Amino acid sequence: MTTGKRGSQRPSRRAFIGLAGAAAAGSLHPAARAQTADAIRDLGETPSDYGRPSPFEDSKRWSRAPDATASSSNTPLADLEGIVTPSGLHFERHHTGVPAIDPDTHRLTIHGLVERPLVFTMDDLVRMPSASRFHFIECSGNSAREWSPAGAPNVQMSHGLASCSEWTGVLLADLLDEVGLKAEASWIVAEGADAGLMSRSVPLERALDDVMIAYGQNGEAVRPEQGYPLRLLVPGCEGSISVKWLRRIEVAHMPSMARDETSKYTDLLPDGKARQFTLVMDAKSVITRPSGEQKLDGPGFVEIRGLAWSGRGTISRVEVSTDGGDSWVDAEIEGPRYAKAFTRFRSPWRWDGGRHVLMSRATDDTGYVQPTLAALLETRGRSTIYHNNRIKAWEVHESGEVTNAEA
Amino acid sequence: MTTGKRGSQRPSRRAFIGLAGAAAAGSLHPAARAQTADAIRDLGETPSDYGRPSPFEDSKRWSRAPDATASSSNTPLADLEGIVTPSGLHFERHHTGVPAIDPDTHRLTIHGLVERPLVFTMDDLVRMPSASRFHFIECSGNSAREWSPAGAPNVQMSHGLASCSEWTGVLLADLLDEVGLKAEASWIVAEGADAGLMSRSVPLERALDDVMIAYGQNGEAVRPEQGYPLRLLVPGCEGSISVKWLRRIEVAHMPSMARDETSKYTDLLPDGKARQFTLVMDAKSVITRPSGEQKLDGPGFVEIRGLAWSGRGTISRVEVSTDGGDSWVDAEIEGPRYAKAFTRFRSPWRWDGGRHVLMSRATDDTGYVQPTLAALLETRGRSTIYHNNRIKAWEVHESGEVTNAEA
Repeated sequence: MTTGKRGSQRPSRRAFIGLAGAAAAGSLHPAARAQTADAIRDLGETPSDYGRPSPFEDSKRWSRAPDATASSSNTPLADLEGIVTPSGLHFERHHTGVPAIDPDTHRLTIHGLVERPLVFTMDDLVRMPSASRFHFIECSGNSAREWSPAGAPNVQMSHGLASCSEWTGVLLADLLDEVGLKAEASWIVAEGADAGLMSRSVPLERALDDVMIAYGQNGEAVRPEQGYPLRLLVPGCEGSISVKWLRRIEVAHMPSMARDETSKYTDLLPDGKARQFTLVMDAKSVITRPSGEQKLDGPGFVEIRGLAWSGRGTISRVEVSTDGGDSWVDAEIEGPRYAKAFTRFRSPWRWDGGRHVLMSRATDDTGYVQPTLAALLETRGRSTIYHNNRIKAWEVHESGEVTNAEA
Repeated sequence: MTTGKRGSQRPSRRAFIGLAGAAAAGSLHPAARAQTADAIRDLGETPSDYGRPSPFEDSKRWSRAPDATASSSNTPLADLEGIVTPSGLHFERHHTGVPAIDPDTHRLTIHGLVERPLVFTMDDLVRMPSASRFHFIECSGNSAREWSPAGAPNVQMSHGLASCSEWTGVLLADLLDEVGLKAEASWIVAEGADAGLMSRSVPLERALDDVMIAYGQNGEAVRPEQGYPLRLLVPGCEGSISVKWLRRIEVAHMPSMARDETSKYTDLLPDGKARQFTLVMDAKSVITRPSGEQKLDGPGFVEIRGLAWSGRGTISRVEVSTDGGDSWVDAEIEGPRYAKAFTRFRSPWRWDGGRHVLMSRATDDTGYVQPTLAALLETRGRSTIYHNNRIKAWEVHESGEVTNAEA
């Protein structure tokens, strides 16, 4: 360790680093010399219209069984940094495939219990007052395998049905103000332009809060598999309610009890009753590095990193354990901490080469604390596959390999 | 206009909207019916490994003359929303093309006036403490055509050498602390692994501030044309100093006076002297909508939107004029307002169908106010092509067409 004081912006971290891997410059690995020679020998590529990741990168979405009638793909969270999910890696979930919609002919109709039913073109919507906000979307079936202690082997499979983007659009409250709500209005029903006419009902109180009609995602147009050209975005709620390829909003006095809020997306309790409209995704976190199927190449400093989010507000605290939950330390949250958005946490750790079980535990600004699997099973039983926000554990082995830890 | 009170989250805007375009639902355009029928008839596409924009979108980078020895491409700012530039549309500027670098063999060497020269692998760097921050990068030659009143015809050509990403990496201060600075250290010299060995010098005081060695961009790995796998990121400063494909940092007691900080990137003044190391990009803003070569399809409400940024800190105020600078109103800044990052501003406007000249003017938290072209010419003369942050004007014609306004 050096003891230089210049640049000690973050002195608390100094003791942890210590350079397990970095080599003295005199011992430059032959591969480094080879690379240097290769890269500087030739002129490189010219500019391109629309860039792509390096061919050396193989981050991709993972799909269990690609099928147009009921399919999904998971975000490779272990590969990602920061809070933005690149749009090309945003998880997918569609019930009848991704329709190809021409924005010039697409229309949004708002009708029902309104004073003045209206039809909006994309141009109409883009001229209106807009907002841009970072929000996560999480499928209510994310972490379905985590209802069992033998959870998924990697974080893409265990937590990859969650992603975060900067969304831009019109606030639904502004549109509802334009059409004028009738006194008996209390729900809206949103319908997509996919083959299944995916429909979900949203309580009016929520629809008038921070719900957005989104046409922008991470700067550019919403991606096809995220609802191009128009998506209902219901921040903090289960993903299926953020209806994609949005074509129609009916203002009603009750929910429509549509196929996808009765046959799916309800939570069967031990007594046989089902919870319905359990929309909000509770506070959750997961360590993305080191995580399952990664391998540490030797003892020494490792920054533990992960993501936390809550459908109820902001993340106020994330704790990390390296001993299976016997002791916890507060993780550092540097950078953005938006409501209903991914929040990145970091915690310094010196791996001693021994066996360790890593866990993270999030608390949101309502005071809610992420539960253990045991606590979740106690209240919800074993009959639901939705809304699993248990604490996830990874086991670091002496070999450096990381696996799912039964917990 | 309706007068519904429910959902009046933003009452100050109500008077402005009024639905110039939206049609009553009874008058649904035939095209909307056609689209609806098409989209819901067939099952859509299945999930994909890595998504792409809709084929109906044609946002792309624009390159004046693609050439591996001196080329650039511009971001289509008029098409973008929010503050994130999609990585595929981030502007490019490279002097000898984009090298293809294998991250497994890439090394970063830090040497010179240090106690312990070191060579880092990518794994070494990723294990270290990290930070994720939103920062713009702007080429010092951005808006070069704006030194003339007859500026560029659209915002992609006038301002498109600026983009903003969420960057993740190691703080250079942490690395310099590891190698240990000698007392006489006062500059660093960064070198890229492209064919031209692009080199720039950075004052040590700045290097120890918020400079980052970035390996992440908008969640995933830095894109090839942005320096994959490693880029020096010097927030707020002209883009060329954020050396891409970073392979070597030499700690020195003076700048290297490298080719690209002597033959280029200096500002020739009227008296024949040249300003050198004019690194910081001053406060700047531009209206992206409505902007040159767009067309308004009729009078009525239009939200004026644009971007503002400052290399010295945060944007504290943006003013908008719709009468060529005779009067100004404060624009709304909703959402992220990071230091040295794009900041999105919005201003409601009801276009009366007449001729209007639109302008925006940014102020940063140092109190600096974006200047007119006349003021800039007075201090800098007509011999430089760099660091142009003049107020830009767009003219809305009675036809709805928008052009560059000489100002």
